[in-house]
Amino acid sequence: MRHRRYAIIGAGALGGFYGARLQGAGCDVHFLLHSDYEHVRQHGLVIESKDGNFTLPSVHAYRDVHDMPPCDIVIVALKATQNHLLPALLPSTGVVMLMQNGLGGEELVAGIVGAERVLCGLSFICSNKVGPGHIRHLDYGLVSLGEVATRGISDRMRGIADDLQRAGIPVQLLDDFRVARWNKLVWNIPYNGLSVILNATTTEVMANPDTRQLCEQIMREVVADAHACGVPVEDEIVVKMLDHTEKMTPYRTSMKIDFDEHRPMEVEAIFGNPLRAAQAAGAKSPLLETLYRQLQFLNSASA
Amino acid sequence: MRHRRYAIIGAGALGGFYGARLQGAGCDVHFLLHSDYEHVRQHGLVIESKDGNFTLPSVHAYRDVHDMPPCDIVIVALKATQNHLLPALLPSTGVVMLMQNGLGGEELVAGIVGAERVLCGLSFICSNKVGPGHIRHLDYGLVSLGEVATRGISDRMRGIADDLQRAGIPVQLLDDFRVARWNKLVWNIPYNGLSVILNATTTEVMANPDTRQLCEQIMREVVADAHACGVPVEDEIVVKMLDHTEKMTPYRTSMKIDFDEHRPMEVEAIFGNPLRAAQAAGAKSPLLETLYRQLQFLNSASA
Repeated sequence: MRHRRYAIIGAGALGGFYGARLQGAGCDVHFLLHSDYEHVRQHGLVIESKDGNFTLPSVHAYRDVHDMPPCDIVIVALKATQNHLLPALLPSTGVVMLMQNGLGGEELVAGIVGAERVLCGLSFICSNKVGPGHIRHLDYGLVSLGEVATRGISDRMRGIADDLQRAGIPVQLLDDFRVARWNKLVWNIPYNGLSVILNATTTEVMANPDTRQLCEQIMREVVADAHACGVPVEDEIVVKMLDHTEKMTPYRTSMKIDFDEHRPMEVEAIFGNPLRAAQAAGAKSPLLETLYRQLQFLNSASA
Repeated sequence: MRHRRYAIIGAGALGGFYGARLQGAGCDVHFLLHSDYEHVRQHGLVIESKDGNFTLPSVHAYRDVHDMPPCDIVIVALKATQNHLLPALLPSTGVVMLMQNGLGGEELVAGIVGAERVLCGLSFICSNKVGPGHIRHLDYGLVSLGEVATRGISDRMRGIADDLQRAGIPVQLLDDFRVARWNKLVWNIPYNGLSVILNATTTEVMANPDTRQLCEQIMREVVADAHACGVPVEDEIVVKMLDHTEKMTPYRTSMKIDFDEHRPMEVEAIFGNPLRAAQAAGAKSPLLETLYRQLQFLNSASA
């Protein structure tokens, strides 16, 4: 079997890192770029990583999606705030693997290309773009993969997992992507939200007994929201995540970085979509709704 | 009958203003001061007011409560954050009129001097201390007076109201001070809270559809909390306050001023005490609890 060919839509902190690692492991990778196109076409990609720095002096760079060859896997690593661009960016062939925060992205992509062409690709990584084509990978890196139209582990999931693992990326295969999505929300909703609203790191939020308690209350509400939506998130995840976060080094969340750098925050993906899903399922979600409305204010105030 | 003699405990933006107006109207007024004592003893009080500027070159100023003469009315105009000082400051005679934000102050004072010696004195005023003995009165000024041990309008309430009205202060006499306390919380909880948490004026909070909606949800929760506590706050107050606030000029709340100037905020009086009262009465109050915990974080972060 020939090697799988990958397209990377959005070669920033996430797509640039994973795409570069796949190319480094011998995969045929094609990058769609916007503002960094000229720089990357001429100079390639530079990855600083806790696992070792490396440079790709030459990459396949494109400014127009129509110039790209047909790819087996199309990794979408845009911020969810750019999802309005997807109808114009998604090719007519290949599996679309969505690496984004929050809820609702898979359903959006399924509406464009059909659910059977969509994979969920959750990423647990701490990396930043520090300049054009220059990515700094600070910690973590796990990718969780799941089918969207069906449950269980498919051959194409295993194939992508093989490529990622050969590239040194830890992979987890998901039986039900919705559980993983909501699990991640249990962490993202309290910490992304409170870090922006209170101008705080995770460590500061956890050190204060009132906000630690608030985190736990928010987490329990999100678990209840998942259950209302029919997604069997485990209750134990709350205590596990509190303990884990308490032991983490001080962490500036991705939403806090967006806010500090005056970029639009993924408020709808991480807060608005889960809130609407939960309330449509009959949950009240008062804490999530409060955070959502506070963040909507801050998002428009900083725009 | 001789004129009533007044003590003013805490001659800042509130006590300084009302005390000066009472003295200007011929009352015998005695001011207890702390940091401004020397200045006020030498230079008196300067009031800039939308109703006309005036100066009192000479006032009765004290640094030690034991040097003050017996007074008929002891107006406590300290911030609620200083209430731990009250046992040492309250004299053994006279009616104590508590002019403070929030809930629980009357019960605290009643525990020290006995409920029959306590009046509730709510103030609706926009005034700031701009320097030692120098107060700037920007708007409003209404004082609402109520008995604490009983309901209904007492003779001593009428007497104080006469003095205040002669001093040009509008007065409202309360049948049930608890209704007035909770009414004021319906405004103070959303606007003091969100103005600090979101770094916003009342106008900005009302101009954003998400935070306007959040204000309404918070107000409805506070009304329900009052009802849970057996206090008959009217539901109509929510729409009235939203409409009124929308028409106000941009307003920096008292808690926002405290926060901006790195003074402790009255979080327990305005949020913690109502929250504990509501939850003790069986209400859940998730929005109030969220604001409370967020403000506790900000209060300790700014300390």
